[in-house]
Amino acid sequence: MNLDKIYSGLTIPNQSKLALVVYDGVGDIATESTGFRTPLEVAKTPNLDALAKHSAMGRMTPVAPGITPGSGPGHLGLFGYDPLEFEVGRGVIEALGVGIDLKAGDVAARANFCTLDAKGLVTDRRAGRIDTSVCEAQVEILKKKIKKIGDVEIIIKAGKGHRFVVVFRGKGLEGPLTNSDPGREGQPVAIAKPVKKTTKTAKTAKVVAEFYRQALPLLKNCRPANGFLLRGIAHQPHIPTFQDRYGLKAACIAIYPMYKGLAQLVGMTKIEGAHSLAEEFTMAVEALKTFDYVFIHIKPTDAAGEDGNFDAKVKAIEEADAGLATLIAAQPDVLVVTGDHSTPVPVKGHSWHPQPVMIAGEIAGWDGMERFTERAANHGSLGIFDAKYLIRFMQANAKRLDKFGA
Amino acid sequence: MNLDKIYSGLTIPNQSKLALVVYDGVGDIATESTGFRTPLEVAKTPNLDALAKHSAMGRMTPVAPGITPGSGPGHLGLFGYDPLEFEVGRGVIEALGVGIDLKAGDVAARANFCTLDAKGLVTDRRAGRIDTSVCEAQVEILKKKIKKIGDVEIIIKAGKGHRFVVVFRGKGLEGPLTNSDPGREGQPVAIAKPVKKTTKTAKTAKVVAEFYRQALPLLKNCRPANGFLLRGIAHQPHIPTFQDRYGLKAACIAIYPMYKGLAQLVGMTKIEGAHSLAEEFTMAVEALKTFDYVFIHIKPTDAAGEDGNFDAKVKAIEEADAGLATLIAAQPDVLVVTGDHSTPVPVKGHSWHPQPVMIAGEIAGWDGMERFTERAANHGSLGIFDAKYLIRFMQANAKRLDKFGA
Repeated sequence: MNLDKIYSGLTIPNQSKLALVVYDGVGDIATESTGFRTPLEVAKTPNLDALAKHSAMGRMTPVAPGITPGSGPGHLGLFGYDPLEFEVGRGVIEALGVGIDLKAGDVAARANFCTLDAKGLVTDRRAGRIDTSVCEAQVEILKKKIKKIGDVEIIIKAGKGHRFVVVFRGKGLEGPLTNSDPGREGQPVAIAKPVKKTTKTAKTAKVVAEFYRQALPLLKNCRPANGFLLRGIAHQPHIPTFQDRYGLKAACIAIYPMYKGLAQLVGMTKIEGAHSLAEEFTMAVEALKTFDYVFIHIKPTDAAGEDGNFDAKVKAIEEADAGLATLIAAQPDVLVVTGDHSTPVPVKGHSWHPQPVMIAGEIAGWDGMERFTERAANHGSLGIFDAKYLIRFMQANAKRLDKFGA
Repeated sequence: MNLDKIYSGLTIPNQSKLALVVYDGVGDIATESTGFRTPLEVAKTPNLDALAKHSAMGRMTPVAPGITPGSGPGHLGLFGYDPLEFEVGRGVIEALGVGIDLKAGDVAARANFCTLDAKGLVTDRRAGRIDTSVCEAQVEILKKKIKKIGDVEIIIKAGKGHRFVVVFRGKGLEGPLTNSDPGREGQPVAIAKPVKKTTKTAKTAKVVAEFYRQALPLLKNCRPANGFLLRGIAHQPHIPTFQDRYGLKAACIAIYPMYKGLAQLVGMTKIEGAHSLAEEFTMAVEALKTFDYVFIHIKPTDAAGEDGNFDAKVKAIEEADAGLATLIAAQPDVLVVTGDHSTPVPVKGHSWHPQPVMIAGEIAGWDGMERFTERAANHGSLGIFDAKYLIRFMQANAKRLDKFGA
């Protein structure tokens, strides 16, 4: 029994408007170090509080119990795509992260500049962690000289420090390939080989090898970054679009490229131009006029959590709350506030702790909570559920799912 | 997609110390007969209370909704082995219960002495429930005369009342076989046959038949126990070890042989010598110096539940709480207190009621509960989850699981 197929058969269209607001990494934990409070508990959030009275609450397992998700799996789950089923390669995520517009069939690789000795052995896998400016200059050298290999277009873009991304765009390409990164110093650069041999993976391996043949001589005099290593060489997986899967014309509003990229992966339209939280919310209200579903990504909560900065996280939540008022005033039929995972201040990084979720709508039902917090959400009517079901609750609240059986 | 494989790929080593304290059957229910209180609610537990402030709480489904587990499935779940996937035969559990050190490939059977009439028909499947001393004497008769059948070693050990265990140890043996117990009186002893015919099961069936051929004449003059019936004839299943599965060097501290046996099944080292709860906790602290993970089994809570003795269960919890202080003082990185199932006083036996669980650690997060009780656990951040995921939460809290995806 394929549950997605059953949902698909029940999906019905209507004029409702749905909004998903992701406070990235908003979930947190109360420990002695935080005075046994969480940022959501301490923050002044009149707008979240107002919404609470029209909301069902719960918590979501982003991937599986105890598993800490990266941003890719975290968002795929929120979009209703089981992150264990729809795996997106590291190269693809990195490419999205630096803002490359990936197309179906593209093969992407994350790359590190490294140091090679005279024998071609790797002496430093990160080339002494060169500055971003050095990385950008070297990427320019490669870009100028290598534009195409046979019929395959080569797209190269610098990231931060020693990191860059290579995208191979052309017909008949496919991943995954094994890493050319040997994983430790003292080894030569490995040959990237098909994980499973097909005509497509064989062609891809050949193109990668030729890329190395042309690129290495160009870096010969670059010190310390006279070589590079590739990892996560994979194609953009086939993912059914939001429109096909849910019958929803969807848009994405985010400031950081990776989140726009992830939304684009599932067929959302990127709406460019927001530079502040306030602008994001204003643009969301505008987008709701022409789209059925809008995803709004709020970054500062995650950044504050990563920094272990409790006060900054409180401030980020309060700032988002001000923007939220704009969206509430536009009265979408279903309005969800949640995170893609928790980034607890005491952890200083992503974690597995289920993120709190609040689904507001005319028929969501009030769970009796006055505020939206982790511990309030523990008592909600939604319980703890897998993040991939969030979209189903949104569809249901929007009356976009028909009755099952008579 | 195999979830265990994904967890395995994310497992990373570190120096953290994990402790699992199982209050056997601790979960209970509040009914009119108990004054609407549970033993955990009534017991004075200053140490559990102190731990509560550093804990995430929830409840666990031992096997599946409504299923009451025996001790085997109950513990396998706590150790992270799906009890529906890793089935351990009754014979194996009984053998562990009487303290036989099973080896890989052993086939074990639980046996009942029974009464046979002149025609060989079973007239009493439990031989009038003979005393343990009679059982022991008859087992001695069998042991003296039957030590080997061909190249197969025969190990026989008395249990309680009419029960005993037979283990067949040798090369090329395998279960399961059908029962020789016909299931009701008036029938002859059945022939134990391979459930699935292989060279190994055929050999095992032959050895069992020969065992009957040699054993029955030895019991001819024993009254009323002049026969015996075999059930649950199966080999010890292959179970990946704790070390291989979680990268944890694990030890077990228990007083009763069955729990030591179950721990040994998954590759834990048995630490012998504890005779009291206090000793168990002292030895656990010592074990944590050389092991990554220690499992401590506390029996009296279950015994009191089985007896339907509320006060005895309260006392057992209070006694364990005193010992717990020793372990808390040793500051393991992750400390879990739970049961392998519930043994509610009003039920006087194991039950399906989800057992409460408390995971204490630096990044567990406080759910706001002042005490560890069933009804507090209902409001915890862990919700209700399958017991097999407990080890995953323990790994996560110990920072032994890497991030999934970028």
